[in-house]
Parts: sequence; structure tokens; C-alpha cells
Amino acid sequence: MQKIELANREALRTILDGQPVLVDVQPAGSVIEGLGRNVILHSGPPISWERMCGPMRGAVCGIAVFEGWVADLDDAARAAASGRFAFHPNHHFGAVGPMTGMTTMSQPVMIVENKAFGNRAYCTINEGLGKVMRFGGNDAEVLERLRWIADVLGPALSAALTASGGLGLKSIIARGLAMGDEMHQRNVACSALFLREIAPSLARTSRDRDTLAEVMAFIGRNDQFFLNVAMAMGKAMTDPASGIDGSSIVTVMCRNGTDFGVRVSGTGDRWYTAPVEMPVGLFFPGYSQRDANPDMGDSAIVETIGLGGFAMATAPAVAGFVGAGSARDAANYTNAMYEITVGRNAEWTMPNLDFAGVPTGIDIRKVLATGQAPVINTGIAHREAGVGQVGAGIVRAPLACFEQALTGLAQQLGVD
Amino acid sequence: MQKIELANREALRTILDGQPVLVDVQPAGSVIEGLGRNVILHSGPPISWERMCGPMRGAVCGIAVFEGWVADLDDAARAAASGRFAFHPNHHFGAVGPMTGMTTMSQPVMIVENKAFGNRAYCTINEGLGKVMRFGGNDAEVLERLRWIADVLGPALSAALTASGGLGLKSIIARGLAMGDEMHQRNVACSALFLREIAPSLARTSRDRDTLAEVMAFIGRNDQFFLNVAMAMGKAMTDPASGIDGSSIVTVMCRNGTDFGVRVSGTGDRWYTAPVEMPVGLFFPGYSQRDANPDMGDSAIVETIGLGGFAMATAPAVAGFVGAGSARDAANYTNAMYEITVGRNAEWTMPNLDFAGVPTGIDIRKVLATGQAPVINTGIAHREAGVGQVGAGIVRAPLACFEQALTGLAQQLGVD
Repeated sequence: MQKIELANREALRTILDGQPVLVDVQPAGSVIEGLGRNVILHSGPPISWERMCGPMRGAVCGIAVFEGWVADLDDAARAAASGRFAFHPNHHFGAVGPMTGMTTMSQPVMIVENKAFGNRAYCTINEGLGKVMRFGGNDAEVLERLRWIADVLGPALSAALTASGGLGLKSIIARGLAMGDEMHQRNVACSALFLREIAPSLARTSRDRDTLAEVMAFIGRNDQFFLNVAMAMGKAMTDPASGIDGSSIVTVMCRNGTDFGVRVSGTGDRWYTAPVEMPVGLFFPGYSQRDANPDMGDSAIVETIGLGGFAMATAPAVAGFVGAGSARDAANYTNAMYEITVGRNAEWTMPNLDFAGVPTGIDIRKVLATGQAPVINTGIAHREAGVGQVGAGIVRAPLACFEQALTGLAQQLGVD
Repeated sequence: MQKIELANREALRTILDGQPVLVDVQPAGSVIEGLGRNVILHSGPPISWERMCGPMRGAVCGIAVFEGWVADLDDAARAAASGRFAFHPNHHFGAVGPMTGMTTMSQPVMIVENKAFGNRAYCTINEGLGKVMRFGGNDAEVLERLRWIADVLGPALSAALTASGGLGLKSIIARGLAMGDEMHQRNVACSALFLREIAPSLARTSRDRDTLAEVMAFIGRNDQFFLNVAMAMGKAMTDPASGIDGSSIVTVMCRNGTDFGVRVSGTGDRWYTAPVEMPVGLFFPGYSQRDANPDMGDSAIVETIGLGGFAMATAPAVAGFVGAGSARDAANYTNAMYEITVGRNAEWTMPNLDFAGVPTGIDIRKVLATGQAPVINTGIAHREAGVGQVGAGIVRAPLACFEQALTGLAQQLGVD
């Protein structure tokens, strides 16, 4: 048992010691090895085309059209069914993606480097709200936006970031937490702070003033812009904590709309999966729980570093948005997460809890001992392809993943 | 008594119905009638050179040099003592100014128009933190910054605002309150949201990319940039509520470092003054309460519209900054202010209090009945000229002002 405690202490320290810096934006195919033609990275643990949910299939078809690998959406579905595409989890390639999480060669990815450990993580750029590919949208408007992101926004951000020497993320998160962001369903503060930080460099490196205005307007009207930055940061911070012998700390939680996947430090890259749960929350006008797709996306990486549902106390405004109740309820979610984590992040504090640090380092033993599953704030996609986001809510990680993980860790440690 | 109730209801409705829009930035002398050579507007109620505190004198001397009316600071002091300058309160000219509150002809002022009532209010542009004129700073660095504001920043903001058709402020405040700003000692959210809103228009109208980058960097590194916008907004919202016969609602609270001044709707432009109190708070390294100047500035206009100390509950992070204690203490300040106000602002709510509206409309009768003086979050200037800001804290409006105001209102109503 002492071995586990020491290993967990090291895993926690590794997460807390991370120095994530957004360093550049580049086409995914140029920085992620093996990401070539007909290779599609998706959110969550491994899954075949046959088992993919509606919005995931919709996104696959859309991104194949976007990449020019197929003529149209029908052609894409046939190609997918015939096995022409290689599907892999983002997590197998140092990447993460929100909701459907499509990562393919031509899309620009933000590159977050963990300066303390030298590793890098990748995430695509957030497309905005409503009918977007991450929620299964795939029509001309969605693809046209992705094209603009690839042709204009990505290069603009790359120029600004390289000219400015990159953007340290820890301090932005610290400020955002004091401004009511939990960095999962509420990113308005960090999105605005991000633009504020990068605006001078964007101005200095812009192609022309109209492009600059477009870029600033696109970032400026998307309150969730920062989500994808926070996700790449989460991946960059947790990756070095993977593979610490004996550690029972969770390094990955993710979902593909069918299965929920967990990885634990002590067993490295091994997946523990179980069927995903259905988010419960609030729906946009015209939609209801009936329209909801089950839980989806790599975004739960932010909960593994103490943000999202774990930091709900600092974000009473998001509690309303996801249907979690009052300010007191929000605090209760965070307080419950202290029971399943091994430490607090002294750099990321919540004024509402008198500057208590966010609960960090999910210990699968504590999850099982308390029966308290990690809480995740999430967007809700329509269950059919092509529709998009219909709401936001709260979901729990399935306890079955943690049961399997404990068995796996015990086997590895030679304990029965 | 019913007359007072009805009048107060009208005053409250007038404040709440305001539609403040930041429409332009222009040199003060071109938009404020009577603001010519050797005319200096200052914060607080009327005051002579002889009774001015150290930082106010320092600012007067500095602004006279800036305007080119005198050769240097010594020359300025002699000119002031000899009566060469005409001193008037900002409030006599539809203006407000933070701390020393210097408004003179060459400085650009932000123009907030209350679209619901057609009136306009003015405030200079925030200079940033530390050694700045509003805190009594007056050396070459301070004046050079003011020059850049006049020559570069003012025209850039003017171009962007006129091109974009102006910036509605109510919704920015609503968002800022959900992001932990109380708009007096904490404006980081609104400052970032302001830049985010105006950035595309700044980009489209900028002179050149270096100027644009400078402007964005200046706004972006000043977490208090929005304070002056909020102040002009407060003035624009309360002015139409002045002069409602019988109303006991406070329309102005302000201080010049020597006297605290209050105006009440029912008695229009009449001042009720008493000696200012000393703020109690936290000091920057190297400074202590001994260095503090008494309470100063027109910024308490934000408390008259339910922000600042009145909205402390939503800003637990500022409670620490001003030495007000814990998150619970912050909520207690707001709860106490409900006891001295006549209504709540349904558009400006606080997630921490489960979206209760900010306490709005200070009733001098309630202040006196409860003995609860309005609480104000304030910056603290060094008591000597030329030093600048040394801390931030909390101060109370003196009860004596409210006693005089009640007597004045009673006389006006023919009641003894």
C-alpha cells in the first residue's frame, strides 16, 4: 500500500509541476506522426465504424469530405463501412478532441508543450457553437468553416504565437477560475483573456487588417474558444504522469458516445472501458432529453486535472447552464470531488471556497471506496448525425471502468 | 410619505431603465462646454486649492504642466495658489473622474450616452496602475503616458467606436458580474470583454499595425481599464434620476480627499458634504496605513447603481484584494446593502447569490434608520503628491452627509 501512496504522490506532483505553454498551431499531419491520408482520429477509447453513434458517424463522413478523400457524405459512409478509413483514438497520438473529436491531416492543431517535461499534446481549434462538426454537424456551412480555420485562422494563430514566444497557460487558468470559468462548459473568461494576451501579436503579424478583424471576431464571439486549449493543456499535463509503477491515479477519462474509457497511471496505456452514461441537463429550445446522444468526447481530460465538474464551485453560473442547481449545489459537487482525489492545486484556487485549490488526482481506490464517480460537465449532442449541439449537462464516469482498473492495477502489482 | 415612495419608485425605474452606450472618445474641451484654458475639473464636491490633499495638489500641478499652461510643477503650484486656475467638480459638467479625477481640455474623454433619456456623461481614459495621475503621480513618465493617450489611444478608440456604432454597456456589466467583477476594484472581466468586443473594429480602423498592437497591449495589460467606462456609465444612468420631486434616492456619492459629497434626487444639484473617512485595506509592499490618503474620487458613482461594494458578493476575489475577508464576508456586505436600497436590478445578477439582482437605489432614510452607511470599494493613494497608488480597501460614506440630506429634503417638502 505504501508503494501506491508514494507512486500517487509522484503522479500528483508530476501533474502539478507541469508548465503547459501553447507554442504553435500547425496542420495535424505535419506534427502528428502517422496521421496521413484516410487516417481518422476520434474521441474516446477505440471503436469500430459499426459501433459508432450517430453524431460520430456524421462527423466521420463530414471530415472525409472535408479532406477530399470522398465525393460526398454518402460516399463517405460507404467508404467507412468498407473499411477504407483507419480509425484510432486521439489519445493514441498525443491528441485530444472535444465531442466527436475528429483529428485529420489537414486540420490545424494547437500544440501545447509541457516545458517541465518536454512532451507535446495536440487539439484542433474550437469551431464555435451550434451546428459544428464536433457535435456531428457535417453540411456545407460546417465544412466551409473548417476550411477557413485551416486556411486563415490556423496560420494567423501560428504567426502570432511564434512571434510572441508562446502563451503560458497556467496563469490564464488561475485567473479564469477566479472569473467563474471551470474550463469545460464555461470558458468565457479564459477565451477573453486568451484574445487579450495574443491580440498585440496577432496585430503585428496579421496578413491584412480585414483578416485580422475576421480572426478577432471569430475568437471573440466564441465563449468556448478556450475549451480546446484547456484540453490540449490537460493532455500535456497528464501524459508525463502516465506509467508510474503502482500509481492508482487516473490519467485519462474519455468517451466516444458508445464507450467510456479510463486509463490509470500504474497501468500506462491500457484502456478500461464500459458503456457511457446519458448526460442529464438542460436543452436548447426545441430539444429534449429524447434527442440526447450518450456521453462523448475527450474533454473529460480537464476533469482529470481538477477542472470542469471538479471546479464547479467556482462557476455558479455554469451550474445553471448545465442544470446542476444553485450556487450551493455547485460547491457541493466540488466538495464531493475532494473525497476521490489525492491533492489540491495550490496554483489553481477558487475564491468562492476561500481560495481552496481545485481537487486534483483522481484515485480509483477512493472512487470505489466512496462510490462517488467523477462528475463531468459536458455538452450534449443530438443523437442523429448532422444536427449539432442540443444542450449541456452533467454526467458521471461509469464505476465499472474504475472496478476494472483496480483489478488491472492489482494484477500488475501481483496482488489478488 | 407616499409622495416619497412614489418618487423613489420613479427614481429607481429611471436608473434601471437606462440604456448606456459608449459612443465615442473626444478631447474633453471639444465636448464639455466651458472646459477651456486654466479650467480644471476635479473629483468630489467643490474644494479650493488651500483645502486640497497632497495627491490632489500633485495631480493639479501635473495636469497644468501637461496642458502647457505652466513651465513646471513649481510654477504650477504658484499659479494654483495665486488663483490662476478655475477649479470645479466634474459633476458640475456631466463628468466623473477616478481618485483625483483631473479632467482638462486636451485629455480625451469617453462619452457614454444614455439612449433611453438622451443625456451624455464623460470620463477620461484609465491610465493603468501604479504611478499615475489619478493617484497623484505627476512626473515625466506620467505626463508622457497622458500624451500618448491623447494622441494615439483616444483617436484609435474614437475611430473604432464610431465605425462599430458604439458599445452597449449593460450586457457587458451583466457578464462581468457573472465573472467576478464588481466594477470598482475588480474590472478584469469587463476590461477583457471590452477589448474582445472592440478588437475587430479597432483592427479595421487602425492607423497601422504597430499602433494597433500598442493600443491593444495598453488596454490588455490594464485590469482596471473598464473602471472609467463603468463610471461614465454610472453618471449617465443616475443623471436622469436627479431632480425627481420628493425622492430620497442618492444620485451622487463622491470624494475629493478632503470632503465627501452626496446628492439626492429630490434636492437636485445641492451638495451635502462631510469630512471623508480613511479607507481601511491592504497595502502594496513597502507601504502601510500611515501612507494612506483619505478617501478620494468620483468612482463611488458605481456604488450608486448597485456595483462596487454593493456587488461584493459576486466578487469574492476582490474581497481579498481590499482586505474585506472571506467569500462569506463578501456576501454579507452585499446583503447589508439590500437594507439601505429600494430595489434590485433584474438585469445585473450575481450567480453566487443564486442570481439575485444587485441592490440598487440608496434611500437616505434607510441609511439613517439602519445606521448602515454605504460601503465603497476603493483604491488608496499615497497622502503625498507624486507617489501614486499604495493599496486598496473599503471605506464608508459618512453618515453626516445623509443626515444633512434628510434635513434638506424635509425642508424642500415642507416637513420639519
